[in-house]
Amino acid sequence: MSEESKKRILERVEESFTEETDLLTRLVRTKSIIGREQEAQKLYAESCHNLGLSVEMFTPDKNTIKAHPAYTPIDLDYIDRANVIAEYKGSGSGRSLILGGHIDVVSPEPTHQWTHDPWSGEVVGDRLYGRGAADMKAGLAANIYALETLFDLGLRPRGRVIIESTIEEELGGSGGVLACFMHGVTADGMLISEPSKEKIYVTHPGIRYFRVTVQGKTAHAAYSHTGINAIAKMAPIIKAIEALDIERAERLRYPLVEKQTGRPCNLSMGKMQAGDWVSTVAGWATLECRIGFVPGETRQGVEDEIKKTIREATNGDQWLKEYPPKLDWFGWDTDPWMEPTDSTLVKKLQVTGSKVYGAPLELTGASGGLDARFGHYFGVPSLSYGPTGANYHGVDEYVDLPSLMRVTKTLALFIADWCGV
Amino acid sequence: MSEESKKRILERVEESFTEETDLLTRLVRTKSIIGREQEAQKLYAESCHNLGLSVEMFTPDKNTIKAHPAYTPIDLDYIDRANVIAEYKGSGSGRSLILGGHIDVVSPEPTHQWTHDPWSGEVVGDRLYGRGAADMKAGLAANIYALETLFDLGLRPRGRVIIESTIEEELGGSGGVLACFMHGVTADGMLISEPSKEKIYVTHPGIRYFRVTVQGKTAHAAYSHTGINAIAKMAPIIKAIEALDIERAERLRYPLVEKQTGRPCNLSMGKMQAGDWVSTVAGWATLECRIGFVPGETRQGVEDEIKKTIREATNGDQWLKEYPPKLDWFGWDTDPWMEPTDSTLVKKLQVTGSKVYGAPLELTGASGGLDARFGHYFGVPSLSYGPTGANYHGVDEYVDLPSLMRVTKTLALFIADWCGV
Repeated sequence: MSEESKKRILERVEESFTEETDLLTRLVRTKSIIGREQEAQKLYAESCHNLGLSVEMFTPDKNTIKAHPAYTPIDLDYIDRANVIAEYKGSGSGRSLILGGHIDVVSPEPTHQWTHDPWSGEVVGDRLYGRGAADMKAGLAANIYALETLFDLGLRPRGRVIIESTIEEELGGSGGVLACFMHGVTADGMLISEPSKEKIYVTHPGIRYFRVTVQGKTAHAAYSHTGINAIAKMAPIIKAIEALDIERAERLRYPLVEKQTGRPCNLSMGKMQAGDWVSTVAGWATLECRIGFVPGETRQGVEDEIKKTIREATNGDQWLKEYPPKLDWFGWDTDPWMEPTDSTLVKKLQVTGSKVYGAPLELTGASGGLDARFGHYFGVPSLSYGPTGANYHGVDEYVDLPSLMRVTKTLALFIADWCGV
Repeated sequence: MSEESKKRILERVEESFTEETDLLTRLVRTKSIIGREQEAQKLYAESCHNLGLSVEMFTPDKNTIKAHPAYTPIDLDYIDRANVIAEYKGSGSGRSLILGGHIDVVSPEPTHQWTHDPWSGEVVGDRLYGRGAADMKAGLAANIYALETLFDLGLRPRGRVIIESTIEEELGGSGGVLACFMHGVTADGMLISEPSKEKIYVTHPGIRYFRVTVQGKTAHAAYSHTGINAIAKMAPIIKAIEALDIERAERLRYPLVEKQTGRPCNLSMGKMQAGDWVSTVAGWATLECRIGFVPGETRQGVEDEIKKTIREATNGDQWLKEYPPKLDWFGWDTDPWMEPTDSTLVKKLQVTGSKVYGAPLELTGASGGLDARFGHYFGVPSLSYGPTGANYHGVDEYVDLPSLMRVTKTLALFIADWCGV
C-alpha cells in the first residue's frame, strides 16, 4: 500500500470521527448490562448491516459450549442474547481477520456517586463518559469505523474480515467468543479492541471466582446471645483475605502486568451478603471474591492458598471448627494466558502502530481476563489492543476520545496491511 | 363464680384442645410473613365469626398513625393488610377486656436448617413446630378458645370482650395495635398472649434499629488496589459492635429481663449487604443492627454510644476520616416500657394463674418489644402473658402444647373473673 493511501486512511478516520463518536454515544446510551445485551446488539448489527456486511445473529447453545475445556460456568440462559457476527467476504486472497469486542457491561451502581449519567455518553473535553464507554463500546465503534474508512476510500480488503460483537465477556465469555469459535468462526488472526491504553495485551493472569459461606445460628435479636452471628464470624476471614492480597502482591512477580497496573495480581472482595432481617441474628454470610494469579501458579495451588488462609483465620473458633466455612469456586475460571510475543500478528501490529504513534506499540499484560485467550484453543493468534480510558467497572468510567481516534487509525491501517487491499 | 364453674372451665379447655391445636395448625400452615398477613387474617376472622363475634377487618391509614408519638416508621403500605377486630358486646355491666395477638411472622430463612417444614405445624411429642407456632399463633388460638370455652359452658361474659389479631408487630406494631387504639378500640385492660414462658411481662427494654453505611470506591477487581473496599472498611466496625454488645451486657443491669433471658440487653447484627458484583471492588457496605436498652438509658444516649463506638473503631483510617460511616436510625424505635406491678390487672391475672399453676404467676421482663406498650398511651393497662416455646425468629421454632393448654385455661378463667359471668 502506498504512503499516499496510508495518509488518506489517517485523514479519513479523522473526517469520520464525529460519526464514530456518534455511534459510540448511541451504544453507551443503549444499556447492555450482562444478560440484557440484545437491544445494543441489534443496534450494532444494524451498523454492520449498513456497512454492507452480511450479519448473523448467533445464539449460543449451552450444552455445546459446556463441553469445551475453556468453558467458564455462567448461570444465564441464552434467550434474546445473540452474538453479532458480521462478515465481509474479501475481494480475493489475503489473510483473514476477526475484529472482536464485547457488548456487555457491568452494573453502574452506585450510580449516585457518578458525576455524569452512566447512560448518557456525555462528552467533557476529551472524555466520553458512561458505563461501557471504555470497556468496551469505544473498541466496538473503532472496529466498524476502521473497516468503513477503507470502504470509504474504495480500498476493499482482499482477505476476509469478520466483525464480532459478543456477549457475557464480563462473566468469562463462554457464550460469546468461545461460542463463536465453536460455531466455526475462524481467521488467521484476531484483534479484540479492549481498552488497553493503546498497548498490546499479550498476556493476562489466571482468574478464578470463589465464595466463602459461613454458617451461624439464627435467634431473635433479643436473645442474640443464644445465636451465633455469621457476620461476626466472617470478620476475621475478611481481614485475612485483605492481608493475603497484600502479601501476594509483594511476593509474586509478573512484569508485563506490573508495568500496566503497578501490581502483579489482585485478590478482591466484591460482594457480601449476610442475614435477612435486622431483628434476627444473621444465620449465614457469604463473601464473593476474585483472585488473579500469575504464570507459574496453578489453579489448584491458588485454591489451596485460599483454603489455608481461611483455616488459619478461623483457627481456634470452636463454632467454626464444628461448622467450617464452605468454599465454592464459580464463574470465571481460567489459567494465565500468554500469546507468543514473536508471532507475525504481534510483530505486524507493533509495526503498524508506529505509523500512528511514531514508535512500535508496546507489549504488556492485562490484569483482567480477556476473550483473546480463546484463540489459543482454535489455532487463531489473538491479541487485545484498544483505547485509553479509566474507571472500568467503576464510577465515572470514560474513554479518551483522541486515543480512540488513534486506535481507529491503527486498526484501519492494520486491516489494509494484514488482509491486503 | 363457683368453684364448680371453674372446674368445668378447666375441663372444657382440655376437651376442646384438639380443636384448638387444629386451629393453631391451620394458622401455622397459612404463611403470614410481615406484609403478607391477609390470608391468615381471613382465616382468623372466620374463626371469630364462627364464635358469634361481630368482626371488623380494619385497614389502618398511614397518615393517621404517623402523627402518634409512639409511631415506629414502617416502610410498607396497607393494601390487603387488615387488622381483625372481633367484638362480643357483653351481657351487662362488667369490666371490658381486649385479648390481643399479632398474626405476622418473620422469615423462616435459612429453611434448609430446619428439621421440620416451617409451614407444616408438625407435632412431635409435646411440641408443635413452625414459623409463628410460638410467636404467636398459639396465643391467637388461645384467645379464641378461652372465650369459646365460656360460651360452650353457657357462661356469657358481662363485660365487653374484644379479640384482636393485628399486623406488623415484628416491625413495631404501628399499623397493628397502635392503629387499633387510634381507631377507638379500648377497654379496661388488655392481655396480649405473646409467648412469655407462662410468666407475666410487665416491662421490656427500649429498642432501636440502626444501619451503618460505609462508602468505598469501586474499581475493576483487576485494579483493586486503586479502589477502596467497603467490606474491608466495615470489618473493624463489626468487631467493635460485637465487643460493645459484650461490654453493655456486663455493665448494665435489668433484673426483670435478666431473669428471663440471662442478659440485661442485646445488641445484634442482623443483616449486611455490600457490593453487587464479584469482579468489582465493593463500593459500599451496609450493616443493620438492633439495640435493646435498659430503663435509665435514653434513646439519645444509646445513639451517642453507637456513634462513639464507630468513631473509635475507625479512628486513624484516612479514607473513613474523609468519608465517615453514615448512621441511620430506622424501624423499631421505642423507649423502655414498664407497667405498674401493683395494678388491678396484674394482681388479678397473677391470682387467676394460681388456679392453674398452684402459685401466682411470676412477673418478668421481655427482652423484645411488645405491643402491650401502646396501652400506656391510651390509658389501658396492658400485659403480655402466653405459652412456652423456643427458637422464635430462629430455626425449628416450636410451641409447647401443654403450656398452651395451661395458658388457655388461665385466659378462660381470667375472662370470667375480669368481665364477670
